[in-house]
Amino acid sequence: MLTNIRKVRIEWCDCDPAGIIFYPRYFEMFDTSTTVLIERALGMNKIDYLKAYDFAGHPVIETRARFRQPTRFGDEVAIETTLVECGESSFKLAHQITKAGALAVEGFETRVWAVNHPDDPKRIKPQPMPPDVLARFKSN
Amino acid sequence: MLTNIRKVRIEWCDCDPAGIIFYPRYFEMFDTSTTVLIERALGMNKIDYLKAYDFAGHPVIETRARFRQPTRFGDEVAIETTLVECGESSFKLAHQITKAGALAVEGFETRVWAVNHPDDPKRIKPQPMPPDVLARFKSN
Amino acid sequence: MLTNIRKVRIEWCDCDPAGIIFYPRYFEMFDTSTTVLIERALGMNKIDYLKAYDFAGHPVIETRARFRQPTRFGDEVAIETTLVECGESSFKLAHQITKAGALAVEGFETRVWAVNHPDDPKRIKPQPMPPDVLARFKSN
Amino acid sequence: MLTNIRKVRIEWCDCDPAGIIFYPRYFEMFDTSTTVLIERALGMNKIDYLKAYDFAGHPVIETRARFRQPTRFGDEVAIETTLVECGESSFKLAHQITKAGALAVEGFETRVWAVNHPDDPKRIKPQPMPPDVLARFKSN
Repeated sequence: MLTNIRKVRIEWCDCDPAGIIFYPRYFEMFDTSTTVLIERALGMNKIDYLKAYDFAGHPVIETRARFRQPTRFGDEVAIETTLVECGESSFKLAHQITKAGALAVEGFETRVWAVNHPDDPKRIKPQPMPPDVLARFKSN
Repeated sequence: MLTNIRKVRIEWCDCDPAGIIFYPRYFEMFDTSTTVLIERALGMNKIDYLKAYDFAGHPVIETRARFRQPTRFGDEVAIETTLVECGESSFKLAHQITKAGALAVEGFETRVWAVNHPDDPKRIKPQPMPPDVLARFKSN
Repeated sequence: MLTNIRKVRIEWCDCDPAGIIFYPRYFEMFDTSTTVLIERALGMNKIDYLKAYDFAGHPVIETRARFRQPTRFGDEVAIETTLVECGESSFKLAHQITKAGALAVEGFETRVWAVNHPDDPKRIKPQPMPPDVLARFKSN
Repeated sequence: MLTNIRKVRIEWCDCDPAGIIFYPRYFEMFDTSTTVLIERALGMNKIDYLKAYDFAGHPVIETRARFRQPTRFGDEVAIETTLVECGESSFKLAHQITKAGALAVEGFETRVWAVNHPDDPKRIKPQPMPPDVLARFKSN
């Protein structure tokens, strides 16, 4: 399975008046981790793979997370991201954030391969992934 | 059950290069909606109720969301928030975001009533809610 | 001169571990205020005026701000935005944020009317504003 | 003079519907760069130096920036930060962001050494920096 680990430092700008991370920031981190995973799988930066496969992106349609212990500014954390399931037009990822080896956050997300809707430029719709992408998502 | 509706406009700064909202922004909106709900229940602003009840906040320990249709800058949405369950030291909320009457996002979250840990100022721990708070959370 | 006032409440998610607003949030507020001002001047939402005039946006090329007193979560502030100068392809705005009538923040920004660069889709370049836009920016 | 360089990758979450960075994100980056500079000067993480010197932080009271060329998701940039001036209770920093060696952004900021106001916990006030801090800020 495709997997990726990023080291991130929690910064002052990520934290709220309680002095701990403001939890929506974790979803920003998950999003970047997913991008990095896909970039490695496809061998291209996101700006290039969006063009190469001519699609609108891979929006999240469902997500959940458990926050087991808070993190604070200055904390160095590791985000491990794994592509855990791959369908025809959707795929699932799991994220685990650890601090000093202890699990701090677990996240899960389902994403779709999306294209602009042919009848309405304001909408997007899921579409089967190109075979090349599927092969790369499933092989590693 | 306690419930609250806020009208929010999705802004340029909430959206990503796909032109749709960047989904972590929804969790920021949920967080503000929860605050507003609690402020109304307790009859005080958050800055005041944190002091009045001398606690560290009500961090989210678990959340999930389904994104049914994207929203874009300029969209006016309604966020309806309901306190759906209330335990001794934790409570659950449901959020529904609608756009022109159609459901766009569903969110759920579990929060705890947290105080600073007596043995370690870097940690927080759940604590039973004051009876006054419990009564207000359950009565309305 | 075109002018606009918005009421905004500083939220928990805008504040940092010092309990005061994290100052980059003010620039997000300024950006939304500028959008609202232009929407009113052109009589269209941003999503529509970008299409109607077929341009890439009005990015800030220079900004400055003075923070005279901090704001905190729960503070209700007023943001007054004025189009103070209008050139051929650029325009300047001033923002004043007041809290309970006292000046909290002053901001200034210069923006350009930008189109995608004909030779390089990754770049943008300034372009003279349409006469219709100029007239509306100058007349009110 | 104290100086520091950080490498940062512009991410999808930093960019707006025009596909370029949303400029308030630069101020978040500047803030982190300033923190890293001070951490190195004082030999402690921010969470520790706030305690060691018992102060409320070093809020920005004035800032300005020029955006010379946009950056996009996937761009690797370097942020060079220099402490350019140091008074008794305030200090000034300059930031330069370069992309592939070319200047993209210039930022300047004035910060104060702030403590909680003795008469009003909701306010902060500038205070002369400890001699130890001054010496470190000026010596390197």
